[in-house]
Amino acid sequence: MRVMTVILFAGVWICPAMGQKPVPMGAAQVAQEVRDYRLDNEDRIVRELAEFISIPNVASDTPNIQKNADHLVEMLEARGIEAHLLPITGRGPVVFGKLITPAATRTVIFYAHYDGQPVDPAAWTDGTPFEAVLRSDAIEAGGKRIPFPENSAKQPAVYKDEWRIYGRSTSDDKSPIVALLAALDALRAKQIPLGVNLKVIFEGEEEAGSTNLAHTLELHKNLLAGDLLITADGPVHQSGRQLVFFGNRGDIGLDITVYGAVRALHSGHYGNWAPNPAMELSRLLASMKDAEGRVLIDGYYDDVTPLSELEKKALGEMPANDADLERELGIAKSEGSGKKLVELLQEPSLNIRGLQSAYVGEHAQNVVPDKAEASIDARLVKGEDPQKKFEQIASFIKKQGYFLTDHEPTMEERRAHALIARVVDQGGYRASRTAMDLPVSKALVKVVETATGNDTVIAPTLGGSVPMYIFEDLGLPWIGVPIVNYDNHQHSSDENLRLGNLWRGMEVYATILADLSW
Amino acid sequence: MRVMTVILFAGVWICPAMGQKPVPMGAAQVAQEVRDYRLDNEDRIVRELAEFISIPNVASDTPNIQKNADHLVEMLEARGIEAHLLPITGRGPVVFGKLITPAATRTVIFYAHYDGQPVDPAAWTDGTPFEAVLRSDAIEAGGKRIPFPENSAKQPAVYKDEWRIYGRSTSDDKSPIVALLAALDALRAKQIPLGVNLKVIFEGEEEAGSTNLAHTLELHKNLLAGDLLITADGPVHQSGRQLVFFGNRGDIGLDITVYGAVRALHSGHYGNWAPNPAMELSRLLASMKDAEGRVLIDGYYDDVTPLSELEKKALGEMPANDADLERELGIAKSEGSGKKLVELLQEPSLNIRGLQSAYVGEHAQNVVPDKAEASIDARLVKGEDPQKKFEQIASFIKKQGYFLTDHEPTMEERRAHALIARVVDQGGYRASRTAMDLPVSKALVKVVETATGNDTVIAPTLGGSVPMYIFEDLGLPWIGVPIVNYDNHQHSSDENLRLGNLWRGMEVYATILADLSW
Repeated sequence: MRVMTVILFAGVWICPAMGQKPVPMGAAQVAQEVRDYRLDNEDRIVRELAEFISIPNVASDTPNIQKNADHLVEMLEARGIEAHLLPITGRGPVVFGKLITPAATRTVIFYAHYDGQPVDPAAWTDGTPFEAVLRSDAIEAGGKRIPFPENSAKQPAVYKDEWRIYGRSTSDDKSPIVALLAALDALRAKQIPLGVNLKVIFEGEEEAGSTNLAHTLELHKNLLAGDLLITADGPVHQSGRQLVFFGNRGDIGLDITVYGAVRALHSGHYGNWAPNPAMELSRLLASMKDAEGRVLIDGYYDDVTPLSELEKKALGEMPANDADLERELGIAKSEGSGKKLVELLQEPSLNIRGLQSAYVGEHAQNVVPDKAEASIDARLVKGEDPQKKFEQIASFIKKQGYFLTDHEPTMEERRAHALIARVVDQGGYRASRTAMDLPVSKALVKVVETATGNDTVIAPTLGGSVPMYIFEDLGLPWIGVPIVNYDNHQHSSDENLRLGNLWRGMEVYATILADLSW
Repeated sequence: MRVMTVILFAGVWICPAMGQKPVPMGAAQVAQEVRDYRLDNEDRIVRELAEFISIPNVASDTPNIQKNADHLVEMLEARGIEAHLLPITGRGPVVFGKLITPAATRTVIFYAHYDGQPVDPAAWTDGTPFEAVLRSDAIEAGGKRIPFPENSAKQPAVYKDEWRIYGRSTSDDKSPIVALLAALDALRAKQIPLGVNLKVIFEGEEEAGSTNLAHTLELHKNLLAGDLLITADGPVHQSGRQLVFFGNRGDIGLDITVYGAVRALHSGHYGNWAPNPAMELSRLLASMKDAEGRVLIDGYYDDVTPLSELEKKALGEMPANDADLERELGIAKSEGSGKKLVELLQEPSLNIRGLQSAYVGEHAQNVVPDKAEASIDARLVKGEDPQKKFEQIASFIKKQGYFLTDHEPTMEERRAHALIARVVDQGGYRASRTAMDLPVSKALVKVVETATGNDTVIAPTLGGSVPMYIFEDLGLPWIGVPIVNYDNHQHSSDENLRLGNLWRGMEVYATILADLSW
């Protein structure tokens, strides 16, 4: 036991069969062995996830985000993975881990993030975003809160596939980390050797735009030698099937504030004389897109790099499930003039993610508001530059007659300009894509297909954004292998994980670690 | 002293000169006597207001609104005014008071309200809406928080005219009540007899739409015999001059909620496919008015009763101060195609008083929101029916392609209708106007002009809304004599009262009580 500890600390994975070179096991068999292990250990895995969820993880909450990082180091070291914290001033560090497999010639790096989107506890059904709550199904499907099952050595707790764990980052993105580490535990328990060296990069500010990731990794470039990066972020396909994706959209955020009078005014004494910023903002936003959702901003679609023939083919082979989705989500008519969802994800988007002006409902006050705010995000596809996209939007606002500023307007500016918009660039990053015909791309698809019984959807691009351009810049091909349910309320309240997805995720990750070769 | 108490309890104002019929004093002289009294008693008056402010008074906060009513009864009874609470289920009662003047032939009823608009303490500079805070000037003018001055019999505290008291209802509408009662104290102290019987009606749900006032007054009609109702609600003219007004606009409120998918969706995975309710709401609102602020809803201006020649003349004589107001409020261009503020107040308005969808700023989440809400208010002028106005707006929304509902849409409704708006009628009431050529109208103008040294603005209609239609229906002519500063942040955060307005208000009300006759 003592020897084991020492060796594990050095970050080396010892083949359990006393140094003999093992015969690699087939991907399907690995998946089965991992499943057997999991059936005996579900409680341990769920408890590890629940404990991880209980540490609040909004990127700007520095003390708590640091606690998450420290906790991750413990989780890694418990598996004998050599762990380092790569510090970032004022934010959570990048957690780096390394596990050497003596005979391996390839190194696979897993990327995930341990921070989560901001929370509004009042908007959560259970009111507790940082407490793992077990439910018998999704809330939308009538899932009820249930106690965690009893567990003992004699009678291990059984968690049903359709049960869900609710809590911030249950899906985005803590459970993939737990799945990876549980996969390692399973391989060790079943004495299945790893086929590759493993490195991990767990980021602490992905939901805050990954502003420092590129710089931090550049500083520690010597740690990052590898042959493939797998991103464990994002949901699987809406059909519920496993997903492998080769690209993702970039993302920029901006806040627009439109100003009225310097203070909110009584709507009786000043209404229809004082300019109403909520009305002006509505007019501005409405002018940005047509009724079908097409963006009307000059040059908005000009820089898109077209898909390759292979990518087009993959797109064509993706399951068409728009009608199911519309039914499930209560959508009578989607945007995009009849284009399919997967087609639309190949285009840049413009989305109002929030609106705010004075108060509504029972809190409404009879005022002409002094300002109105919109928060916008735009998703970028391959070929588009984030800064240029921001400028296209800003120029459009200017063309609509607005005086643009990056600060609260002065009294002189207010008196001089009928329309004033404060436009704040919250930054962002570009899209990226890995070629689908690289040997590693083909090998990975094959392993995942086998592990899932040929039940995998292959996508040229994901709609969401992960800062994969950073790894592209480091010369690493990257591929996405997400595991969580698509209906996880990612970024919103009531975020949740379907447990069946955690179980399958373990099998997929274990199979990659044991069987991927090219 | 004991005799006095008994007589006061009976609600009779005894002439101080031992029953002799007094010689009426001129309005200018009454004002001067009241001023002398006030200079010696400022601290007492301010403290009475501060104590009144400290009782929270949101109409829906039943326990506290009842405390306000009980406190008012004490304030009235301390002046020997017979007081009754006219109960309203679930809301604050109407506080009714009566003070008989033996020789008087006329009865003047003062109306004010003791409830205030909802508060968001975080939006208040001092964070304490229900604590009277003294400042050296308006916050916008650099006013600093200062302690209440020391007061003693030898050295009475002196409060400067430009000092302000901050707190909810300092202006709207508690200080007019304090001014009226302090005016009575001053008349008594200076041994000036009243010329009229006095009744008061203090309402506890004006800011919640006065839903029960008409019914309550109808039930107690026998108490309401009178010859004139004076409303003490509203601000004086923006020039700072005293104001007398003969009409006000009506008001209706409605909430519009536009729906997207049944839950907020990840803006990467669903953006530019899932309909965005914030964009749809923006489009809907933008379609309601043109760029000059003209309402585009069918028939919106059809029912307006034109002004009489006398009213037009009064309107023409009102001071033109739009340029000053624009400068002060930081407005480069007002709505209304160049029409003056006082002209625009003679038209119905449509105002977005609030917008809300998901989150903005640092709380923004990368989602396509599931819904977007707008709160609207419309001011009505003479001739317009509140229900018809609501229906005009609702019909317009329907014409824009919306399925209208008054409840959260069902899944079936969501699947059937691309555009769904929940439109909730929050009720409201009509405008009203008193003829400016009635004998009582002319007499009142004359008294107020004299009390203020001919420094009074006469307005046919106020822009704001007070439920005066109720008194119109009871056959009572009503006239508005507001006293508070126009820049009082009424209905918003940082509501405040300029003390000079309280002092002048005392003089105006005292003069009416002593000198009004027709």
